[in-house]
Amino acid sequence: MTHSVRFRLDLAYDGTAFQGWQVQPGCRTVQGVLEETLGKLSQQIIKLHGSGRTDQGVHARQQVAHFDWDPGRFTPETIGRAVNAQTDPDVRILNVKAVPDTFHARKSVLVKEYRYFIWNAPVVPPYIRHIRCHIRRELDIPAMRQAAGLLTGNHDFSSFTANPRREVESHIRNLMELTVRKRGPEIEIIAKSNGFLYKMVRSIVGHLLRVGEGAVQVGETREILESKQRTARVETAPPHGLFLWKVIYPKPF
Amino acid sequence: MTHSVRFRLDLAYDGTAFQGWQVQPGCRTVQGVLEETLGKLSQQIIKLHGSGRTDQGVHARQQVAHFDWDPGRFTPETIGRAVNAQTDPDVRILNVKAVPDTFHARKSVLVKEYRYFIWNAPVVPPYIRHIRCHIRRELDIPAMRQAAGLLTGNHDFSSFTANPRREVESHIRNLMELTVRKRGPEIEIIAKSNGFLYKMVRSIVGHLLRVGEGAVQVGETREILESKQRTARVETAPPHGLFLWKVIYPKPF
Repeated sequence: MTHSVRFRLDLAYDGTAFQGWQVQPGCRTVQGVLEETLGKLSQQIIKLHGSGRTDQGVHARQQVAHFDWDPGRFTPETIGRAVNAQTDPDVRILNVKAVPDTFHARKSVLVKEYRYFIWNAPVVPPYIRHIRCHIRRELDIPAMRQAAGLLTGNHDFSSFTANPRREVESHIRNLMELTVRKRGPEIEIIAKSNGFLYKMVRSIVGHLLRVGEGAVQVGETREILESKQRTARVETAPPHGLFLWKVIYPKPF
Repeated sequence: MTHSVRFRLDLAYDGTAFQGWQVQPGCRTVQGVLEETLGKLSQQIIKLHGSGRTDQGVHARQQVAHFDWDPGRFTPETIGRAVNAQTDPDVRILNVKAVPDTFHARKSVLVKEYRYFIWNAPVVPPYIRHIRCHIRRELDIPAMRQAAGLLTGNHDFSSFTANPRREVESHIRNLMELTVRKRGPEIEIIAKSNGFLYKMVRSIVGHLLRVGEGAVQVGETREILESKQRTARVETAPPHGLFLWKVIYPKPF
């Protein structure tokens, strides 16, 4: 008789050499690498459910996934150690934990936090070039903060997603926080929501960058938001500045 | 008639894919890449003089070098831009400046600062694994600070260099600062001196790590220093946590 256990996996990755999260035939993806490793470990097919996809080049400080398996003599700790021993160091298991069957890595999410890092100076330090978006020209931080303020709250974010024509589902999301921090040449944009649309963070950051460059006026932010139409004034910022930073679930998960 | 100008080059690099600073036949080195690029630009052989070598895998936030060239219509700015356009992004020119002929990148140094970064937690975030030395077991920071205090000041550092048998030159150096900082899982060791011996910073950090792990008692630091003999209690810390952080010259350079 088998007794299947649901496991919650917390993990981090360097997105540089992955073609994103989601399994794709012939591509090296985070989900693919982990499903393969867990498959070898368990001698069966393991299906990993992530809290959401991340695009090619996007990093994760904390991504969460779940899978079901009868672990036999494996404990959460030995599963984590075995996976880390058998994968390349650009993906690391941070924690493994047995959770109730009611936990679902995507459906149970309360809040997700993304952070986007910009290096705003003539030259980016070479050793962090894969984790910072480099912008040479000095950005107007107060203007970016003003635009960010207009986007905060409950809105229809159709203008800030990559495929706004999918009319099936609602594009209303609660953007609980959108903060622009600056420390020396480093700008950090923090975005928290109960759910993000496809490429929503990169679209918002891309728009804030255009505002910061003076190419788009702050007044236009409201107009773009209200139009519910994707325009050229909303660019998609490059992936390598973006981190899935934190995924929050309700207790007891 | 040619008019040769001495140029000061400030640069940064990611040491991961370089076999150190110094030119070596058949190897990709920082000096080699820059001399080749400057050679193409100037159509002549350019000899670059660095403030000192860095080992394979060591990074530089600020390295300084000088070279002589009659630049014709090139300005310091256009030299910097041309070199950056023609090199891979793991080395970047930060600044180019014409300086008096009395400037010498190595001989004119007043103070050099190195910083060593340790990630002291069970797992290192994958996206910074090439710029942090990963130590799983919790280090004893007060013990490391005590040992660092004993090493600060004017000493014969023969026990803390990789080839202490070269009796030719003095091994006395003034270690003006050796500070151990901790912020969350990150430990930063700052070392400032008027000059460092070969592998001196990595040897000092290697010793502090053994003290922090409890493998060497703090009392032994003084004994090791006074012995002027390299021992097994002084290990060489791995290169990828080390940054040449700053090189300071007297005015007007």
